[in-house]
Amino acid sequence: MATLSFELQHKDQKSNARAGVITTDHGEIQTPIFMPVGTVGSVKGVSQQLLQSDVKAQIILGNTYHLYLRPGTDVLEKAGGLHQFNHWDKPILTDSGGYQVFSLAGTRKIKEEGVTFQSHIDGSKHLFTPEKVMDIQRSIGGDIIMAFDECPPGGSDYGYAHKSMELTHRWLDRCFTQFNATPDKYGYTQNLFPIVQGGTFKDLRKQSCEYIASKDAPGNAIGGLSVGEPEPVMYEICDWCCQHLPQQKPRYLMGVGTPWNILECIGLGIDMFDCVMPTRNGRNAMLFTTQGVINIDNKKWEFDFSPIDEALPCEMSQYYSKSYLRHLFKAKELLALTIASVHNLSFYLWLVGEARKHIVTGDYASWKEEMVLKLKTRL
Amino acid sequence: MATLSFELQHKDQKSNARAGVITTDHGEIQTPIFMPVGTVGSVKGVSQQLLQSDVKAQIILGNTYHLYLRPGTDVLEKAGGLHQFNHWDKPILTDSGGYQVFSLAGTRKIKEEGVTFQSHIDGSKHLFTPEKVMDIQRSIGGDIIMAFDECPPGGSDYGYAHKSMELTHRWLDRCFTQFNATPDKYGYTQNLFPIVQGGTFKDLRKQSCEYIASKDAPGNAIGGLSVGEPEPVMYEICDWCCQHLPQQKPRYLMGVGTPWNILECIGLGIDMFDCVMPTRNGRNAMLFTTQGVINIDNKKWEFDFSPIDEALPCEMSQYYSKSYLRHLFKAKELLALTIASVHNLSFYLWLVGEARKHIVTGDYASWKEEMVLKLKTRL
Repeated sequence: MATLSFELQHKDQKSNARAGVITTDHGEIQTPIFMPVGTVGSVKGVSQQLLQSDVKAQIILGNTYHLYLRPGTDVLEKAGGLHQFNHWDKPILTDSGGYQVFSLAGTRKIKEEGVTFQSHIDGSKHLFTPEKVMDIQRSIGGDIIMAFDECPPGGSDYGYAHKSMELTHRWLDRCFTQFNATPDKYGYTQNLFPIVQGGTFKDLRKQSCEYIASKDAPGNAIGGLSVGEPEPVMYEICDWCCQHLPQQKPRYLMGVGTPWNILECIGLGIDMFDCVMPTRNGRNAMLFTTQGVINIDNKKWEFDFSPIDEALPCEMSQYYSKSYLRHLFKAKELLALTIASVHNLSFYLWLVGEARKHIVTGDYASWKEEMVLKLKTRL
Repeated sequence: MATLSFELQHKDQKSNARAGVITTDHGEIQTPIFMPVGTVGSVKGVSQQLLQSDVKAQIILGNTYHLYLRPGTDVLEKAGGLHQFNHWDKPILTDSGGYQVFSLAGTRKIKEEGVTFQSHIDGSKHLFTPEKVMDIQRSIGGDIIMAFDECPPGGSDYGYAHKSMELTHRWLDRCFTQFNATPDKYGYTQNLFPIVQGGTFKDLRKQSCEYIASKDAPGNAIGGLSVGEPEPVMYEICDWCCQHLPQQKPRYLMGVGTPWNILECIGLGIDMFDCVMPTRNGRNAMLFTTQGVINIDNKKWEFDFSPIDEALPCEMSQYYSKSYLRHLFKAKELLALTIASVHNLSFYLWLVGEARKHIVTGDYASWKEEMVLKLKTRL
């Protein structure tokens, strides 16, 4: 079993977009890639069968915070890890729990040692340290696991962003020490990705990129974006980070975003994305389609018996009509949530697949300009 | 296109169980059969793909009351009927809406003409008459449609049951008049089944069976059972009705029931069943399995990594473990509802399929005795 490797196959001439292949012990991932979020070991409303057959997911996410609280590491270890527990045999990435814990403002306290917080389920108190988060992620068994970082709130000032970045770097050292001191639990290799922080400040981001790069990890992530800053700032910082992160390692932009965010950031050199948007917005009747954005709740679809998205290679999107899906939402039927989630995820996976094709054929930049306009259209 | 036909293939020697084939313009149905309930044109939490691949449903139900209110007959007609609307190309049966309307106690009024009631969605007032219910079911386009009957509450006295039965018979005449006066809307043949009523009174049930039989419909239904009467009474009345209904027509026992109810009533001569129990109980974490009943919420399954039901030929039941499904219920994940519903429906379809095999091989009565004991076991 081997450390994750990344083969850079194509680079676009007119942008920084790249096409590559990540190889893990659970198989290959064609990049750029979008990773559906399976918070507690399940992508909301979507079976593992549909993730494979319709969505064509190549890797999914699990959330350390949620999996630690429920079902807990004792269950996951006895199951033989998350792959065995949820029967997903392709790659899995787990986040570090940092983002969730910091979102629990009011009930958490940050110290040098780590973060104390209260469970959202029963109010019980817990402590996450870099060491503990490595241990938990060892128990979960993701192919890619993430460093425990502090994600400062959007709009943090320079002083806070600076201190926070330095804490993140000290925690990173502790993560690597613990990671290197502990063996893989389930016979395949786990890979630790560090995370760049530094808010919206270029000098901090540069420092952070250089510190992160010095770890020579098999891949690197950018955190702390899409947390409320204006889109142009997000793109500027993302671009800047890509310039200062190694070329030969996959770059993962955490928690981003809309379809057009993804296309823009692929153009800046990002290889991996995750976001709850396709499933969360889907459950709220918002569909991303090859022709633009649809609010399927809208009365205008009442008599539209055309498929949800004829151009999308997803069985559900072609099988069910807009009128039928609207009816299911109106009637509050469970099936509505599944169809909308499967459709949106399929669309995201299709989109990164198309991006890859255009990187390979060499017309990514012009294709992207057209697509961004089209995808933003409100139908 | 042709009227529904029923071929009686095997009769059990030691019980009144029968195996047959119903032929409709949307295909064949092997009997005895269980029909999943798709209230508003969707079986709750289960896609049409899963109904075919995992559940192996041969026919599903739609509810006239719900479909009339939402999406409404204008949408259904423009879609080309329910088969086109929900893309289910196997047979569909619609109930008459009677049962739902009578369940709205307090907001509905029964007169000779029909029943006035208020929508549970917006409180709007509506009138269902036998004629209107035939027209609505013509618009929905079920292969089998049901007569508009009055279903008296469980425990009704002789006087009420008698009056109610006579009203049901007068309404039946009006149903047939309207049905015969209106053409099929979508190019295939619809078939009207009358419904036996008469409460728990044998003389009324006999009268009703004879009246119903005189219509020479392609199939006959028994209503007004499993509405609160003791199980032995249900079996006694069911047995009695089977004795007084034609042998050569399929017999449909409406709204029944548990797996053991179904096995007992197959033994009495019933060919068709429907019930919300597999989906409703499934959504409440109660699983029917080949080994007995499971409350999957229970702590005892926390570390049980065995498949939900190894012996059941259903992909989901074999793919997901008890521990994982319990976790999904604890975490209130949508996927829990889908897996439990698909499992329970698959179990019901498997059960009637097994019953059929044992009728054909001739050991139904002894097999049934064993199975009823096994299926009732609390695991």
